[in-house]
Amino acid sequence: MAFEITKELIEQVRVFVQQKDDSMLLELLGEEHHADIAELLDDLNLEQATYIIKLLDSELTSDILIEIDEDVREKILKNLSAKEIAEELEELDTDDAADIVAELPEERQENVIAHIEDEEHVKDIVELLTYDENSAGGLMAKELVKVNENWNVTRCVREMRAQAESVTRVHSIYVVGNEGKLKGRLSLKDLLVTSTKTHISEIYIPKVDAVNVNDKAEDVAIIMQKYDLEAIPVVDDKYHLLGRITIDDIVDVIKEEAEKDYQLAAGITEDVEADDTIFEHTRARLPWLFLGLIGGVGAAAIMGNFESLISQHAILFFFTPLIAAMAGNVGVQSSAIIVQGLANNDLKGSIRDRLFKEFLLAVVNGLILSILLFGYTWIWHGSILTSIAISISLFVVIIFAGIIGTFIPLFLDRRNIDPAIATGPFITTSNDILGILIYFMIAKLVLGI
Amino acid sequence: MAFEITKELIEQVRVFVQQKDDSMLLELLGEEHHADIAELLDDLNLEQATYIIKLLDSELTSDILIEIDEDVREKILKNLSAKEIAEELEELDTDDAADIVAELPEERQENVIAHIEDEEHVKDIVELLTYDENSAGGLMAKELVKVNENWNVTRCVREMRAQAESVTRVHSIYVVGNEGKLKGRLSLKDLLVTSTKTHISEIYIPKVDAVNVNDKAEDVAIIMQKYDLEAIPVVDDKYHLLGRITIDDIVDVIKEEAEKDYQLAAGITEDVEADDTIFEHTRARLPWLFLGLIGGVGAAAIMGNFESLISQHAILFFFTPLIAAMAGNVGVQSSAIIVQGLANNDLKGSIRDRLFKEFLLAVVNGLILSILLFGYTWIWHGSILTSIAISISLFVVIIFAGIIGTFIPLFLDRRNIDPAIATGPFITTSNDILGILIYFMIAKLVLGI
Repeated sequence: MAFEITKELIEQVRVFVQQKDDSMLLELLGEEHHADIAELLDDLNLEQATYIIKLLDSELTSDILIEIDEDVREKILKNLSAKEIAEELEELDTDDAADIVAELPEERQENVIAHIEDEEHVKDIVELLTYDENSAGGLMAKELVKVNENWNVTRCVREMRAQAESVTRVHSIYVVGNEGKLKGRLSLKDLLVTSTKTHISEIYIPKVDAVNVNDKAEDVAIIMQKYDLEAIPVVDDKYHLLGRITIDDIVDVIKEEAEKDYQLAAGITEDVEADDTIFEHTRARLPWLFLGLIGGVGAAAIMGNFESLISQHAILFFFTPLIAAMAGNVGVQSSAIIVQGLANNDLKGSIRDRLFKEFLLAVVNGLILSILLFGYTWIWHGSILTSIAISISLFVVIIFAGIIGTFIPLFLDRRNIDPAIATGPFITTSNDILGILIYFMIAKLVLGI
Repeated sequence: MAFEITKELIEQVRVFVQQKDDSMLLELLGEEHHADIAELLDDLNLEQATYIIKLLDSELTSDILIEIDEDVREKILKNLSAKEIAEELEELDTDDAADIVAELPEERQENVIAHIEDEEHVKDIVELLTYDENSAGGLMAKELVKVNENWNVTRCVREMRAQAESVTRVHSIYVVGNEGKLKGRLSLKDLLVTSTKTHISEIYIPKVDAVNVNDKAEDVAIIMQKYDLEAIPVVDDKYHLLGRITIDDIVDVIKEEAEKDYQLAAGITEDVEADDTIFEHTRARLPWLFLGLIGGVGAAAIMGNFESLISQHAILFFFTPLIAAMAGNVGVQSSAIIVQGLANNDLKGSIRDRLFKEFLLAVVNGLILSILLFGYTWIWHGSILTSIAISISLFVVIIFAGIIGTFIPLFLDRRNIDPAIATGPFITTSNDILGILIYFMIAKLVLGI
């Protein structure tokens, strides 16, 4: 792991680009890993990055293009001709090639595809473009090693060698029947330890996990994790072998899912990164802040309705931020547990069981916190009745918040809405308002006003 | 994917266990995937689960034990004798075996290890136990396929076949020198397409990525993701080949990291799941709620200091939940972006650049939201001066919140503290208090009181 993107290196590359010193650039970068060069290009300006992409061999640059930031890639591709892009696509696996084509403006897509020379490759890419991005079809590559169950081992090995040339990683050798239906698999390891004279139909493992081409990406991720698979074949409804998904694509799905959930919990929509523009950040954050504003205005309106209390019980108003904050915190905790349970597919028991458990939990936490708050307000303010009003309210608000925080994500999930949107500002805001309303109603009741 | 854990199946298993109908149980479960049986066992009580573990073959049950919930595993292991546990460990790869041994009470560990017959296996497990759980050493397995650079291909293939028997997945064949130092690798694919007459030192790829045994697990995850590796060799300081980490272990690291960050953002410490006990949940959640309580009490104390304003400017008090909520929301958004950028290792530029960007962003968002709030309060309340006081406060609070939300995780990271703790209630609470303080100070200034 010796390669590091230092400031000096970036400066050096900049100078060589400016001097158009191709031989020095090739010497400096030609041997590096594409992921490292991709990282380096993110630090250059568009002109410099394009220069390097055009200079290096397309075998290397195609891999670089896959690794760099989507925004940067889009701009570089604009600077390349359709023919140049087609050359990059020739080098890529079908899944990566299809992803890049999908990112091009529609009017360019056909033109670029027309420049790809390998007809088989074109056919595969066009097929992959028809699948939904978030489905098994959208993740799979057409590259795989498959053998016919009726072949003998000699033919099998010969055909496999030819196929393996175009497959980056051979995980499994899939066995199909004459109609192309998936029958089973041969493992590479078995092949290593088996005599070469055996017949395929005798030695293949008939049990093979597969996913349907229309299965959701998240579901494929769950299956591959559960069964610790490094590759899984993709079939259509009639079990024809269409492609294969490898674990590295699934790692990306898992990361993206986790990041999306995390950002939603923090009140950020869309997939923004630290280096995106202020406009992109505003678009991702402002709607949630606006929701918070509405909530705050709602809370103010509620408090306005209880204005008559203010002269005699000013202290009640001092504790509204506390009530709102606790309602929000409890709601977020409860919803996070549910969202995570749903994502991992390990929630057991009925909705009623869940709600009852969160109710109990809220009772425990609420009791402890209310007693503490009671003690504090009593000492601070001296009025036992006010202290009772505030602490009972806290108790009730915590229970409501826990139940709402549990119910909303479960409800959204039932309706096929991503429950993760329930964790962030959504729960916080609704619990704020409800909490303050409950608070003043109980206070009025207890204080007998 | 036909196997599903239905209620009927669970019921059937329960009945067979009660009747001690071993042959029916073996028929029902013997052919199933260990991950499915593990899921099923989670739904049974301890006695039933133990019965099944004792019944099934240890080749299958060892894999089941690795998959089931840690809590359940701990209890089942208590019900097994040292010899029975040793039998399970014999079947497992060294990394999984070491994980299980590490979970046993210390007084049992030695006893269990003493019952393992394979001395090589014992040596490997004992070595793995010495590494930190969150280091490369804690993740690696000793199983791998390695060949000596001085061997010829015939010997190499013979030795590889023997080694491959004990390795679940052969990703790469590592090439070492006479002293056991890592020299390079042979890819299985290359082996498929190369003539068998070649000499190892001529055909191996001298370039191979490796991690040091003391590297942090998260760093290994970042490297394996960046370079799309499915396995990486682990070496000591002198580059001796010690073991190998595979992508499935890294998937677990990535998931756990993401879940931990997510839970911290939601105000939950420790790794709790929906099905953990109320006590465990309380322990994980209450401290953060207590922090929120302190924050609320602090906010109340601040408001108490401004009590003199209440008769003339009650409306100021109505907007404290809004100010607190916005301060919290903005802080959480800013910190989430930083935490995610740090986790992905893709934050560029200095702390000053970051702070300046968040400042600009806060100015944009703050301006929009303050103007909206100004309009609303003016219409609602009619007093232009009060509306100005409230909306200017909101503007300033948003800027402070954004800067604090950016600064704290960066600061924690510099001090080698996990920045993720900054996202949840920690930021919310401190921003709440600070927001309310700023709010009243500005209001006093603007209203000239």
